[in-house]
Amino acid sequence: MKGRRVKIAGMGKAIGGQKIYFGEQIRYRLMPEQSLLDLAEQAAEQALQAAGITITDIDILVCAMATPLQAIPCNAALVHERIAKGLDIPAMDINTTCTSFISAVDIFSVLVENWRYKRVLILSGDTASAALNPNQRESYELFSDGVAACVMVAAKEEESSAVLYSNQKTWSEGAHDTEIRGGCGLMPVFDMANNNREDYYFDMRGHRILKLCARKLPGFVEQCLQESGITREEIHLVVPHQASRALKIIMPKLGFTEGSYVDRVAQYGNLVSASVPFALCEAVETGRINRGDLILLMGTAAGLTVNFLLLRF
Amino acid sequence: MKGRRVKIAGMGKAIGGQKIYFGEQIRYRLMPEQSLLDLAEQAAEQALQAAGITITDIDILVCAMATPLQAIPCNAALVHERIAKGLDIPAMDINTTCTSFISAVDIFSVLVENWRYKRVLILSGDTASAALNPNQRESYELFSDGVAACVMVAAKEEESSAVLYSNQKTWSEGAHDTEIRGGCGLMPVFDMANNNREDYYFDMRGHRILKLCARKLPGFVEQCLQESGITREEIHLVVPHQASRALKIIMPKLGFTEGSYVDRVAQYGNLVSASVPFALCEAVETGRINRGDLILLMGTAAGLTVNFLLLRF
Repeated sequence: MKGRRVKIAGMGKAIGGQKIYFGEQIRYRLMPEQSLLDLAEQAAEQALQAAGITITDIDILVCAMATPLQAIPCNAALVHERIAKGLDIPAMDINTTCTSFISAVDIFSVLVENWRYKRVLILSGDTASAALNPNQRESYELFSDGVAACVMVAAKEEESSAVLYSNQKTWSEGAHDTEIRGGCGLMPVFDMANNNREDYYFDMRGHRILKLCARKLPGFVEQCLQESGITREEIHLVVPHQASRALKIIMPKLGFTEGSYVDRVAQYGNLVSASVPFALCEAVETGRINRGDLILLMGTAAGLTVNFLLLRF
Repeated sequence: MKGRRVKIAGMGKAIGGQKIYFGEQIRYRLMPEQSLLDLAEQAAEQALQAAGITITDIDILVCAMATPLQAIPCNAALVHERIAKGLDIPAMDINTTCTSFISAVDIFSVLVENWRYKRVLILSGDTASAALNPNQRESYELFSDGVAACVMVAAKEEESSAVLYSNQKTWSEGAHDTEIRGGCGLMPVFDMANNNREDYYFDMRGHRILKLCARKLPGFVEQCLQESGITREEIHLVVPHQASRALKIIMPKLGFTEGSYVDRVAQYGNLVSASVPFALCEAVETGRINRGDLILLMGTAAGLTVNFLLLRF
């Protein structure tokens, strides 16, 4: 299977400077003087350095983030200002909420393969702490603020790196299971009052999401494995969205045993759109993933949107 | 020139039900009981009908909108719930602010050409009225609320329809010339106070944008024409972003004389991300554009981001 001949040439990551413990669970939040743009700058620098290139070599800057930094302009324009000011690199956001990174890898692997763009810088990350509700313990104690960055380029003839298979689906029965109702177009910021303040916080119905995932994911995973012709045993490592501590319950139900997938929920929590690339970056840095390894990126996101992407690293 | 063999198979549009006059300038805003999702549903239905297909034929639902309906989930998941609930069509946002539609056509023309997706439904539109500042007359009197929809499919062997050339650039010197600073990640909704309330409104520095456009656009247009090998005379009609009444000043400076481009600013104002597809849809409906015509879609957006896309309709 040849696939789309692209390579992740370098990755980087940065996390909020404030370390918090909830029991044994560790979370990181932005410090008062920190902004997500600071983390984006750090992660991008690392990714470019790891890829052995500089920002001037990049053809497009993609923010694959779940939440807006501002309602206008798009996140990529604001990150561009930080790391590419004075250059004319196009800036674009791709958003499928928590699985935005995988969607961006999927889409831009086709664009790189077809020479629309040659070198892509993808950034994922969110300021979860900006909207966490202290009264909703389940979500308040779950999220961290962080950014991960990734440089994707065309693979050379002699390299095996490729996107071998990708699939994405959305079941909007889950559109309101994870949401922030207020603050944007549908419920403007100026409509906030004492009796609807809760609508402007992040709101998660964990039990409903779990039920919908349990109903939809097994069939989706089977379909993807069948279509790709890859067996679970051939996959070196699964990098799933670090959704919650329920990862340990969901993954075995999908046929992935302990040790076959990354679970860093206790160490970092849910990093929203940065979850998958952050875990991928860490696994590469610690030598758990090496060139040529077959990796499965598996995303679940508010929507409910899911991604399944097989990557020859 | 063969280009990417895709076709806009159908379009649709819908506009806010409240008609307002500022002198001779006509604007449309959502009525109190109306939501952008109502307009999205209408526009999508028209586009699907014009293309002779139904929602079940669509492979991916793309919201190419400038502003979020909610901070979570992405706009496409919310539109999916309206028009595709119960189906598993993937939902994704593409955002380059006001030029999101052209970016989406650019990207998805490559994806359709390469069979990643076969039939794409793209929706563009924003609730500009949710954040307009009554104290900033220039912007308060400029914008309308509306949605345009477009079905893109692979062109048949005998059809000439294609994307012949595309280019996008971002100059982030303009990142803060058009913006909404507050309400999202960088300046959370809960930080709004009496002394920073203005930061949560849309803020436009028209004069600065014009100056930056005047500096960047002529060279960009020349480069695109040269690279594409197309002359201004070969272009049947230019559909530019309906940015403001300054369109009449900018377009001649780019070598496009009156009548060679669409100018519907007086009739509709600036429809944000819907501007280009709304004007394109109207031009098709009124017979100003016909199959086989060479069309230039030209976007300018907060960022500053610009798009140049040559389309054989």
